Amino acid sequence: MNKDLIHGGALDVMQLKFPNVDRPWIDLSTGINPWAYPIGDISAEATTHLPTRNLMHRCRAAMARALNGPEEALVLSPGSELLIRLLPSLLTARRVAILSPTYGDHRTSWLQANCQVLETSNPLDEADRADVIVMCNPNNPDGNTFSASDLEDTRYRLAKRGGWLIVDEAYADLAPDLSMVPHAGKESLIVLRSFGKFFGLAGLRLGGAFVPKSLRTKLEHILGMWPVSCPALEIGTRAYGDHAWQMETRQSLAKARRRLDGILMDAGHRPVGGTDLFRLIEVEHATKLWMQLAERGVYVRRFEWSNQQLRIGLPADSIAEGRLAFALIP
Amino acid sequence: MNKDLIHGGALDVMQLKFPNVDRPWIDLSTGINPWAYPIGDISAEATTHLPTRNLMHRCRAAMARALNGPEEALVLSPGSELLIRLLPSLLTARRVAILSPTYGDHRTSWLQANCQVLETSNPLDEADRADVIVMCNPNNPDGNTFSASDLEDTRYRLAKRGGWLIVDEAYADLAPDLSMVPHAGKESLIVLRSFGKFFGLAGLRLGGAFVPKSLRTKLEHILGMWPVSCPALEIGTRAYGDHAWQMETRQSLAKARRRLDGILMDAGHRPVGGTDLFRLIEVEHATKLWMQLAERGVYVRRFEWSNQQLRIGLPADSIAEGRLAFALIP
Repeated sequence: MNKDLIHGGALDVMQLKFPNVDRPWIDLSTGINPWAYPIGDISAEATTHLPTRNLMHRCRAAMARALNGPEEALVLSPGSELLIRLLPSLLTARRVAILSPTYGDHRTSWLQANCQVLETSNPLDEADRADVIVMCNPNNPDGNTFSASDLEDTRYRLAKRGGWLIVDEAYADLAPDLSMVPHAGKESLIVLRSFGKFFGLAGLRLGGAFVPKSLRTKLEHILGMWPVSCPALEIGTRAYGDHAWQMETRQSLAKARRRLDGILMDAGHRPVGGTDLFRLIEVEHATKLWMQLAERGVYVRRFEWSNQQLRIGLPADSIAEGRLAFALIP
Repeated sequence: MNKDLIHGGALDVMQLKFPNVDRPWIDLSTGINPWAYPIGDISAEATTHLPTRNLMHRCRAAMARALNGPEEALVLSPGSELLIRLLPSLLTARRVAILSPTYGDHRTSWLQANCQVLETSNPLDEADRADVIVMCNPNNPDGNTFSASDLEDTRYRLAKRGGWLIVDEAYADLAPDLSMVPHAGKESLIVLRSFGKFFGLAGLRLGGAFVPKSLRTKLEHILGMWPVSCPALEIGTRAYGDHAWQMETRQSLAKARRRLDGILMDAGHRPVGGTDLFRLIEVEHATKLWMQLAERGVYVRRFEWSNQQLRIGLPADSIAEGRLAFALIP
């Protein structure tokens, strides 16, 4: 199977691969909120100048406040993906323990840096052996969660040995209580955050890392003075400052997730995991069901490492919900 | 002097430092085209999805075509600044020869990577000794230029020894004949390009590097699948595809530069260098004139390494031209 078809978000590839689909595609292949933060239009004026320090500081302050962490520990970036790719060159590590299965780019980035990677369902057990432990919390795609107190205990043990705990909180907006951001700034802790998923604006490219001071200097050096675009900074400032929208969105995503669960269960697929932005189902032949859905114009996520699982994002409206329900009928 | 006041583009810092300025600031501190490519507004819809491969490919194709280079050698990035900062970690080098004076971040990036940096007014002389040679062409701030044939000769000599020639063409849109992009793809050659300066949209964060295949793989790995935002890709595609605008803009920038030269010469300052986006003047006490201009609300660029030079960008209209002319009167 074409590798492009395994990853999510490649609707353009799907359209080429399935030219007989004669209705608008329903893209459920990502875990991005289909009801984006309302941004209006972006003014042209905002893009003519280099991002000022004030603009950057305002966005950092709004993000740190929304996530309940220290502003001075936060470094902004054009998405959290770049941070995942840069970290192996900034930390000294040989043995890296990574939660498995999880978002695949952690593994490839550390392998690329010639590290020894242990993939395990409980990396926290490696706190006395690993140089770096990588967690996703909540995890993607199974939605597994880890308590902040267990993670803080792991960080403490790693810190004694000069190791690092990396927590990728790309989906933690949905479960703020789990977040390690309130611990940010402590030694050995790196918390990665993503703007685009919860706020539904992945194309803006905005993310951040909460890191201790020594690493902040290194990260800022490599990212330079203007890593994030003016539109991303302006909209990020507004969106992170809009706490009412965030509260309402958590509730409406939970409701939409329950409707999605209903559709899946009506078709005989009880979700085995996920978050309020996506659900994971187990099936006998994932590729077969994936093809059936694709031929009916519904694009979901499958995985390289399993032919028994599919991940399904939230349908944006009742039409999309109906299309999914119909496409699931054998 | 506050370091922030030496760099360009920090209008917010200037406003704090000179609170008595009671008129809108005239910001001539950068080399950014004051007549930006007309983008209209950016639609919110464009930002809700991750950038697709098609979107990225279209932008790459338009940029490569406009610059007369091979699309397959081009890697896009959120500005050329990030590329400058990443290159030292991707190339193996000990001795680096850098054109001097020039854009300062080249030097700091290589020093940070523990390289031995030789600053010289003619790095091409180092082709048989250096591991890496860094040129800016046309150079910032003095506007010095180097012919493509001299640069190609240097590349060839470096290639025989496994070295690298980096040509930063941030201002080469103004002088396409000098560009090394038509040579792109050849071994040992890296050409950096910037979108924001000529197109006047620095806040979008779009740049690119033309590199040989081996380096392209490494760069793409570190930048990940979505380094550039959807608005930057969409507008970049349109702007690079608009060849008529580019031709007209080259002419109008040349005209505006001649008007700026007139203003400077009327005040007794004959430009000693520059491009059609900025002029360099030599004065007895640069800080003194810089302060005089700042107190009158005109922000120009001074330099850490010289108290005899100031760089002045293009005034955006006749009001700004008048304000500059007035501010220059002793």
